[in-house]
Amino acid sequence: MSETEPETVDTPAPAQTLHDEDDRLKSTFIDAVIAAVEAGDVEGARALVRPLHPADIADLFELAPQDMRRPLATALAEMLDGDVLAEMNEWVRDELIDALAPHEVAEIATQLDTDDAVAIIEELEEEEQRAVLRAMEPDDRAAIEEALSYPEESAGRLMQRDLIAVPEHWTVGDVLDYLRGNEDLTTDFWEVFVVDAGHHPIGTCKLSWLMRTPRRIAIGDVMQREQTLIPVDMDQEEVALRFQKYALISAAVVDPAGRLVGMITVDDIVHIIQEEAGEDILKLSGAGDGDINEPILQTVKVRLSWLIVNLGTAVIAASVVGLFQGTIAKLVVLAVLMPIVSGMGGNAGTQTMAVAVRALALNQLTSSNTARMILREFRIAITNGLCIGGLLGVSVYLIYGNADLGIVICLAMIINNITAGLAGILVPVCLDKAGADPAVSSAVFVTTATDVMGFFSFLGLAALWGLHG
Amino acid sequence: MSETEPETVDTPAPAQTLHDEDDRLKSTFIDAVIAAVEAGDVEGARALVRPLHPADIADLFELAPQDMRRPLATALAEMLDGDVLAEMNEWVRDELIDALAPHEVAEIATQLDTDDAVAIIEELEEEEQRAVLRAMEPDDRAAIEEALSYPEESAGRLMQRDLIAVPEHWTVGDVLDYLRGNEDLTTDFWEVFVVDAGHHPIGTCKLSWLMRTPRRIAIGDVMQREQTLIPVDMDQEEVALRFQKYALISAAVVDPAGRLVGMITVDDIVHIIQEEAGEDILKLSGAGDGDINEPILQTVKVRLSWLIVNLGTAVIAASVVGLFQGTIAKLVVLAVLMPIVSGMGGNAGTQTMAVAVRALALNQLTSSNTARMILREFRIAITNGLCIGGLLGVSVYLIYGNADLGIVICLAMIINNITAGLAGILVPVCLDKAGADPAVSSAVFVTTATDVMGFFSFLGLAALWGLHG
Repeated sequence: MSETEPETVDTPAPAQTLHDEDDRLKSTFIDAVIAAVEAGDVEGARALVRPLHPADIADLFELAPQDMRRPLATALAEMLDGDVLAEMNEWVRDELIDALAPHEVAEIATQLDTDDAVAIIEELEEEEQRAVLRAMEPDDRAAIEEALSYPEESAGRLMQRDLIAVPEHWTVGDVLDYLRGNEDLTTDFWEVFVVDAGHHPIGTCKLSWLMRTPRRIAIGDVMQREQTLIPVDMDQEEVALRFQKYALISAAVVDPAGRLVGMITVDDIVHIIQEEAGEDILKLSGAGDGDINEPILQTVKVRLSWLIVNLGTAVIAASVVGLFQGTIAKLVVLAVLMPIVSGMGGNAGTQTMAVAVRALALNQLTSSNTARMILREFRIAITNGLCIGGLLGVSVYLIYGNADLGIVICLAMIINNITAGLAGILVPVCLDKAGADPAVSSAVFVTTATDVMGFFSFLGLAALWGLHG
Repeated sequence: MSETEPETVDTPAPAQTLHDEDDRLKSTFIDAVIAAVEAGDVEGARALVRPLHPADIADLFELAPQDMRRPLATALAEMLDGDVLAEMNEWVRDELIDALAPHEVAEIATQLDTDDAVAIIEELEEEEQRAVLRAMEPDDRAAIEEALSYPEESAGRLMQRDLIAVPEHWTVGDVLDYLRGNEDLTTDFWEVFVVDAGHHPIGTCKLSWLMRTPRRIAIGDVMQREQTLIPVDMDQEEVALRFQKYALISAAVVDPAGRLVGMITVDDIVHIIQEEAGEDILKLSGAGDGDINEPILQTVKVRLSWLIVNLGTAVIAASVVGLFQGTIAKLVVLAVLMPIVSGMGGNAGTQTMAVAVRALALNQLTSSNTARMILREFRIAITNGLCIGGLLGVSVYLIYGNADLGIVICLAMIINNITAGLAGILVPVCLDKAGADPAVSSAVFVTTATDVMGFFSFLGLAALWGLHG
């Protein structure tokens, strides 16, 4: 896999071979750093780590065993700056931050863009938060406090306040002179926003257009008037979808009065897309955050509460079987076959549910096409039910030589496939309409439906049919 | 939800109210366009659609009923340009493209960046592909053919060849003059690449730095020498992770000799991150692509083959029950309780598997921490097994007044939870080590393990214990 080895130009030779095929630090490198720290060779450890990109220093802490993270932090304190912390897994970061004094946290936060500083400070306990804020310069403090006043996971928390905004009547030359003449301006921007006298955005201009335009042209003539504005209280998931839909690199954030208050850049969005798209699989399985760096007790708590909910639904399904003990006693092979009917329904339901949850997350399932999609799933369920039911019915007939049993399991399989298809799409859609997150609770309802209906249809039909040994 | 209403500046008033709270076109608007097309009022339909962003025109086609897409395309042909097609769901796009003549496809492809043109052309049948390529200008054709020569889903297919590369000795002023003086250059770039005489990248310069630097400074003095290079054959998922890890906006793509051959920008990566992060949930459930626009027969085929595989594993699990028919005949309540043991094991296994699949996809689970993570899951499994097993054992004792039955189900539950935890992490890790995609086939192995072990441990212990009614 040497073709995926990261290549960097003009860095010291060792940097070329630090990464494994997953682009993470090799364990031999991590062990070398840890060995140096354990041997008290702080300078040696620092020399190894110094050439690393901040994202790789963050990796080093994530990949090191938990009990080595503090000693590592002490040895590498000088490199543990804001950029490294911003890249770090939040659980690992919280652990390190907890060990720092408020003024040290304040010092680190001050080096960061508002959005990154907020990401670190918002995770602190309220009291610690206040202590850190008190230790900051008034300007930085005001910026962070304002960001914290917006709801969690909203555009207001994501945005940075440093941006370039210019009036419409400026020429391209004016903009260039302004940028060159003001040292304090941010260097981290991809577009220039054009605002009116009331600081309302009226257009945007990509830097590439600015660079290709002669100095004398007014920026109002080169800017794009149509732009996507992000309301400051918009949920980050919606922000991410909008960035993706309109292929944005950066976007202006406006307050309810339409004034420009900040800017969101795509590099902050990429993390959110990754998180939001990936977390549905964890939510559906009831694994919570599912982060491997989460403290183990927290993980047990989250997973156990989900398992207990599922225990309740399993008991409901089992009680359906309990209704038919007499039927099973007459023909024990029913007990052998019944898990097939319920299990296959569960599989079919999970397929539909996964598709529905994904389509809802991507805003692909909307009021214009929901009815069509329900019909679509219904057709798929009938087709699959007929195929699986037929296959199973014939096999059961051939194995047990009992045609009635074959017919009963075939019918039950068809009924349960239809239940699965309908529950698989209706449960997430209804949860979404009710304002709940379909990824979190769909699985409980869908598998309860397929378990109960699987046992009920199979054992119930067997009882009706008067099957016995 | 009016705060999430998209806001655009200076567009006609109706554009403000076209979107629902999911940022998709309202069904009333779609119905109005369709009504106009059906009434033969082509001009009316065009007038409605003309103010839309290309991404919204693409949405219109996706959200319209399937049988209306062709008539819509005929009416709106003039607006169906490359930008719209590039934004469109691939199934919907293929359907439209199939209806076009090769020279029409060629004309559309010519308007696009190489990467978008390739995305359209690579989906065509080989014969159609050749016809389209023959209809293109030799230059465009060569670019597309070269891109198609790289493996599917590789950096070579994603990259665009239009980029800005300048020699190190140029000054910032030279770069500006070059950009202003050459009309043919791309306008879609965020960085300038600096190359040596052999066209090897030696540095990169963000446009914001260029704009803040006086004209007389040499670009070699302002560029960043360390940059992340993307090998042309790197898999797109790795490219996406690298963009995310190093917060890249664009990156240089190099051939095996290290020469600059193209550029990838983050807007193309955002789609991939969304896709790759989201597809695991669909793969795990066996729903294939899970795209709601996929032709229904294709969907049935994919899901049915998965269900048949699962039928096989369900039969294996059922045959374990079959071994214990005599035990069940002695105590029918075993048949009532056994789905609880197997089902709860399945739930616990799915939790661990979801976490493991996710961590593998994000390169969080690497050789440095796999052993630690297996131990972590083992501990969680034992803890959860003791809790759930204890709870279930006591309940069964209280309900059925049978202490032996309570002990047997408690022990079986603990055994199956441990099986679930170990299978949940070992199966994905081993599949990944073997070069298979853990998201695709983990679920089959894990649920087979928990079903088989659930039935075997519970019924087997019951037989050993000599339980009877």
